[in-house]
Amino acid sequence: METSRFVYETLESFGAGLELSRPTETSVLARLVGENPGRTIAIRADMDALPVQEETGLPFASENEGVAHACGHDGHIAILLGTAKVLGELREHVNGEVRFVFQHAEELPYGGAEELVEAGVVDGADSVIGLHLAASLEVGKVGISSGAVLAAPDRFEIVVEGAGGHAGWPHLTVDPMAVAAQVVTNLQHVVSRNTDARDAAIVSVTKIVGGTAFNVIPDKAEMEGTMRAFDEEVREKIPKLMERVVKGVADAHGASFSFEYYRGPDPVVNDEEVARVVEETARELFGEEAVEAPAPTMGGEDFSAYQRVAPTVFFLVGTQNEEKGITHPNHHPSFDIDEDTLPIGVKMFVHATMKLLGAESRTRTEAKGG
Amino acid sequence: METSRFVYETLESFGAGLELSRPTETSVLARLVGENPGRTIAIRADMDALPVQEETGLPFASENEGVAHACGHDGHIAILLGTAKVLGELREHVNGEVRFVFQHAEELPYGGAEELVEAGVVDGADSVIGLHLAASLEVGKVGISSGAVLAAPDRFEIVVEGAGGHAGWPHLTVDPMAVAAQVVTNLQHVVSRNTDARDAAIVSVTKIVGGTAFNVIPDKAEMEGTMRAFDEEVREKIPKLMERVVKGVADAHGASFSFEYYRGPDPVVNDEEVARVVEETARELFGEEAVEAPAPTMGGEDFSAYQRVAPTVFFLVGTQNEEKGITHPNHHPSFDIDEDTLPIGVKMFVHATMKLLGAESRTRTEAKGG
Amino acid sequence: METSRFVYETLESFGAGLELSRPTETSVLARLVGENPGRTIAIRADMDALPVQEETGLPFASENEGVAHACGHDGHIAILLGTAKVLGELREHVNGEVRFVFQHAEELPYGGAEELVEAGVVDGADSVIGLHLAASLEVGKVGISSGAVLAAPDRFEIVVEGAGGHAGWPHLTVDPMAVAAQVVTNLQHVVSRNTDARDAAIVSVTKIVGGTAFNVIPDKAEMEGTMRAFDEEVREKIPKLMERVVKGVADAHGASFSFEYYRGPDPVVNDEEVARVVEETARELFGEEAVEAPAPTMGGEDFSAYQRVAPTVFFLVGTQNEEKGITHPNHHPSFDIDEDTLPIGVKMFVHATMKLLGAESRTRTEAKGG
Amino acid sequence: METSRFVYETLESFGAGLELSRPTETSVLARLVGENPGRTIAIRADMDALPVQEETGLPFASENEGVAHACGHDGHIAILLGTAKVLGELREHVNGEVRFVFQHAEELPYGGAEELVEAGVVDGADSVIGLHLAASLEVGKVGISSGAVLAAPDRFEIVVEGAGGHAGWPHLTVDPMAVAAQVVTNLQHVVSRNTDARDAAIVSVTKIVGGTAFNVIPDKAEMEGTMRAFDEEVREKIPKLMERVVKGVADAHGASFSFEYYRGPDPVVNDEEVARVVEETARELFGEEAVEAPAPTMGGEDFSAYQRVAPTVFFLVGTQNEEKGITHPNHHPSFDIDEDTLPIGVKMFVHATMKLLGAESRTRTEAKGG
Repeated sequence: METSRFVYETLESFGAGLELSRPTETSVLARLVGENPGRTIAIRADMDALPVQEETGLPFASENEGVAHACGHDGHIAILLGTAKVLGELREHVNGEVRFVFQHAEELPYGGAEELVEAGVVDGADSVIGLHLAASLEVGKVGISSGAVLAAPDRFEIVVEGAGGHAGWPHLTVDPMAVAAQVVTNLQHVVSRNTDARDAAIVSVTKIVGGTAFNVIPDKAEMEGTMRAFDEEVREKIPKLMERVVKGVADAHGASFSFEYYRGPDPVVNDEEVARVVEETARELFGEEAVEAPAPTMGGEDFSAYQRVAPTVFFLVGTQNEEKGITHPNHHPSFDIDEDTLPIGVKMFVHATMKLLGAESRTRTEAKGG
Repeated sequence: METSRFVYETLESFGAGLELSRPTETSVLARLVGENPGRTIAIRADMDALPVQEETGLPFASENEGVAHACGHDGHIAILLGTAKVLGELREHVNGEVRFVFQHAEELPYGGAEELVEAGVVDGADSVIGLHLAASLEVGKVGISSGAVLAAPDRFEIVVEGAGGHAGWPHLTVDPMAVAAQVVTNLQHVVSRNTDARDAAIVSVTKIVGGTAFNVIPDKAEMEGTMRAFDEEVREKIPKLMERVVKGVADAHGASFSFEYYRGPDPVVNDEEVARVVEETARELFGEEAVEAPAPTMGGEDFSAYQRVAPTVFFLVGTQNEEKGITHPNHHPSFDIDEDTLPIGVKMFVHATMKLLGAESRTRTEAKGG
Repeated sequence: METSRFVYETLESFGAGLELSRPTETSVLARLVGENPGRTIAIRADMDALPVQEETGLPFASENEGVAHACGHDGHIAILLGTAKVLGELREHVNGEVRFVFQHAEELPYGGAEELVEAGVVDGADSVIGLHLAASLEVGKVGISSGAVLAAPDRFEIVVEGAGGHAGWPHLTVDPMAVAAQVVTNLQHVVSRNTDARDAAIVSVTKIVGGTAFNVIPDKAEMEGTMRAFDEEVREKIPKLMERVVKGVADAHGASFSFEYYRGPDPVVNDEEVARVVEETARELFGEEAVEAPAPTMGGEDFSAYQRVAPTVFFLVGTQNEEKGITHPNHHPSFDIDEDTLPIGVKMFVHATMKLLGAESRTRTEAKGG
Repeated sequence: METSRFVYETLESFGAGLELSRPTETSVLARLVGENPGRTIAIRADMDALPVQEETGLPFASENEGVAHACGHDGHIAILLGTAKVLGELREHVNGEVRFVFQHAEELPYGGAEELVEAGVVDGADSVIGLHLAASLEVGKVGISSGAVLAAPDRFEIVVEGAGGHAGWPHLTVDPMAVAAQVVTNLQHVVSRNTDARDAAIVSVTKIVGGTAFNVIPDKAEMEGTMRAFDEEVREKIPKLMERVVKGVADAHGASFSFEYYRGPDPVVNDEEVARVVEETARELFGEEAVEAPAPTMGGEDFSAYQRVAPTVFFLVGTQNEEKGITHPNHHPSFDIDEDTLPIGVKMFVHATMKLLGAESRTRTEAKGG
């Protein structure tokens, strides 16, 4: 709330060119409508620290649950504010419309991005772009790839229901701990045996909770975890395979089970054409050697929600600086960003947006088909 | 505290024949010294509900952690109070000494019984007897066997230490959940492959705790459980086998581990000679068909501490009564005991004690060799 | 064939007292009918080396497949021939009838003993006794226990049927090797989790065969093994648990399966009363300290077939002699028996038989109830 | 031998333009040296049925061990013979040299291709091309990709050495079957937990052999299988992870082990520049829609040996024809190729070779760097 008010007030201070609104309680939309008609480009920054950050799967993702200061996002906000200021000042050169989307990012699946899409903030946009500060890249580098860049981060919950009893009399129980262990072990086959080696897929059981006392076999064991994949076919097949394993193993030992699968955001897939424009921007601004094409990662982002409306690109801006001792990954207690990063981000957003606006008129369909 | 004060005061009200003391803060010892010299018999009742009860491993053992009302022990106290009263009144017929041991039973390993042994409450005793109310036997039945009747209830803790990280990047972590699952699965071999089928042994992992979030592989998984066996050789061999498994599996996957093994009370082993006397008592009091010889169980009891000082017997008094609807196992929300049980327990203690006192003089050594 | 002809001819050479017949092609029955009426005692020796020997489960059982010279059985034959000779000479003192059963022992389940029972060779017998030379006992010792002495040696076959294919494309196959491995691993629970720790039970998968080439996932994996137990209830429950595991694990991974369970001979259970007589015989012949009461073993013997007709006893005669260097277990390349063993065996059979014949008349029913 | 003699004689019959030799006993090399100097192009056909075919990992790879008629290779021979004939007739237009490599393909690792490389048959070549008839593609289609197209097909052997014994006494043995099962199960983690999801990798245990009798625990279990990967770093890391698993699991259960890892051919990686030329050839000959870019497969081929000497391309020629009922995968009992395939293969080889020869002079280095 505080953050969004600060953003709102800062944008207000930039003057009359920006039309401000609150698509949801904690998000802010600023529209810059150029003097001439043209295309519509949305730029998104995520404001809330935790959920997105932990989902990115980038090397600097938090390894500690509950770490709250996701400083990178402060940078995202600063960059988008800076971009709004610069483009606002360039308003007379803007054809069409730019939307600055300060997204709230709730931990709930289909949270921030999804709600903003439903609220129509990117309706009619010709493309949506976003960035992430990356401790894995040196300051000065820009990372941009086309195609899938972040996986779908699905979630699952498994409960093995046995029948508790005295730990010295397991034959009178159905031991859910032993069955849960077999479930985890047998689940490895889903990736190692049942998935095409060329399709990236992950099944991680990240949490097991069961039992209370050393001498009591409990009634149940509860597990939680994540499935990651890029390919929709794989993503549809794996939960079926997982449930088959859980059911079979539970049956094998006379236990019951429940299996719940929650689809998270879709994979983030960069549009080829928009990616090309953003990449060109980076080359022109910072030179050939500043541009990298990172491999896709198994992290996830709700940025993918925007893909359903318009072609999108999600790129990385390097923030690592060994000379200045800025080498700690985001979320590290000692995390800091090189402030040189901020103008780089602003330049990227400003120039890419202008390029996208000014690009020879293309229909949406063409862009999507690119 | 309240309980032991009540016991103390009740015993006091029985009159001068009993010498009362508090061997420890929450236990009570009453000594009845007969007018003529003779043997010394100790009778033990455990006053504290939970820890002992849950350790007995009898079919009626609590399946729910934290259930506190172990009503059976109220019965134990009542029976021993009644016994003290009756024997106090028979004092002129008592040769030697009877000690009424109202034991506190702490959850700590080597708690109540051990402390009382160290405090000397059974020093010089010729035998120690105890009973347990058993919902598994009908009212009127007495269960008495010779040899091992309850197993050693040892405890272990295993920690698998991996290296946490992002759930989509397991190759950058050492996943402790997957390793813990393999530990549990591989531990099954200790009983199924490495223990003589004729030696009763149990390895139960009863608790697994690890992980916090669906998208984070945690640093470690913690496990706890129990090992049960009657045979000392088996009991010494199994922890070594378990540690070998934990170490091997951890090594297999690049994890670290810790393995802690806590020996609990020794198995409860009934002395053959004393058991014969108690069995005779039961036959004489209630007839041939009232006496049963239950198989040993994998439960445990700290009563075994007394074995180190004197030959002991631990027997069961039935408390189940279908006609009265008293069929719920001890610790069940609806648990009740048939009050007819109480005089049976008192009679058993009184008559067995008299018999043991009056028995033709035997040296301790002979009794032990029985 | 050669062996049984030799036995037949040797018996013939002993003279007219023995009525010889061939109940089956390769077995020999010699009946010694005493001059006075009385009880009927059968003595059995197994002639064929392999199948019985490998089934006994005694410490000296062959560890090498295909080892054929089970020298111990030569000893069995020699002892029974000697017994027949001695008792033939004592014929005038024999009341009733003695049957010398030279059993063929085929590898087929329910082979030799079963066929002889069906052929009626022990019909009307009051008891049947047999012995085994035991490298685990010193020469001069006799091992005799009452109750179960050898387990039921059941056999099972498991086939996991997957769908073969290229080893680089496991996702297009159902990999039977991986599933078979899980079957074996999950089967451990049958003993470690689902069987009362006090009931001796063994599930051993002794054979796995599957696959032909390093680059081809085969269609199926075949397994074989044995289940051992003493208790009939356990023996009935375990195959059901096993099939549940095999089915569940196969289902978990999309494989098919077959599970075949073949009941072998029943456990060998020594009749209490007959055992007492045999034990007395040993004490009288060789002294108190010569008699041992070995624990039951998980081996098996088709001798149990005779139990259905009459009370039986199966005992051990020691054949180990360190001084003479006779320490190798039966079937060892260096195996030898101390020939002093033979007269001990003969004496045991002769005296026990005379004792059983001369025992005060008991009805069959009483004997069985003993 | 017969095949290579036939090839030799057929080539001889084509006339004086071809210089024939036998680089090894069962291979044939034909050199066509053009009238003008120029570049050197080698074309390879594999003549031997089984080993290569089974290694390709293409969808039509034999699923049945021992199937010998790998008819596809007959086609390869026919195509290369046809190519030699056509190019021989075009000799006057040939600048430089064409080498027709009829490779013997032994089952031994580093067999045919490796031997021919060592024999110098591609020394000085500017590029080497090869094809495979593919039942997965329709007749008329050509499949050509750049980069890795076939994985490294490595092989491993694992022996778990336990200590055999009686199946009823597993505690006196170290059961290698149970340990082998755990090895296979734990090995799944190498792919599912320890390999970056984006790196294609396969660990398949394809063969397990152990045990002889249902009642004997054997001394050891032997396993075999394959590892497949494209990336050299992955290929180096995985055997280490595998050995760690095998060692850890063996240690966990007191077993010994051996682990042997045999590197097979390197991945087949198509040179970008040569691939572009071959692709152009296909487009020009058969049109845009005839050209496909199949994904890389986890199969392997010793064709990769030639990569060490020159840039190479390995492409597919479709042979499936539903109309003619030619749909069975290679090696299927009903396998047949559409004979229309043969001229397509010849045209591809002839035109691609002419194009590669006639290409504006490039240095080897440039080609490799392409």
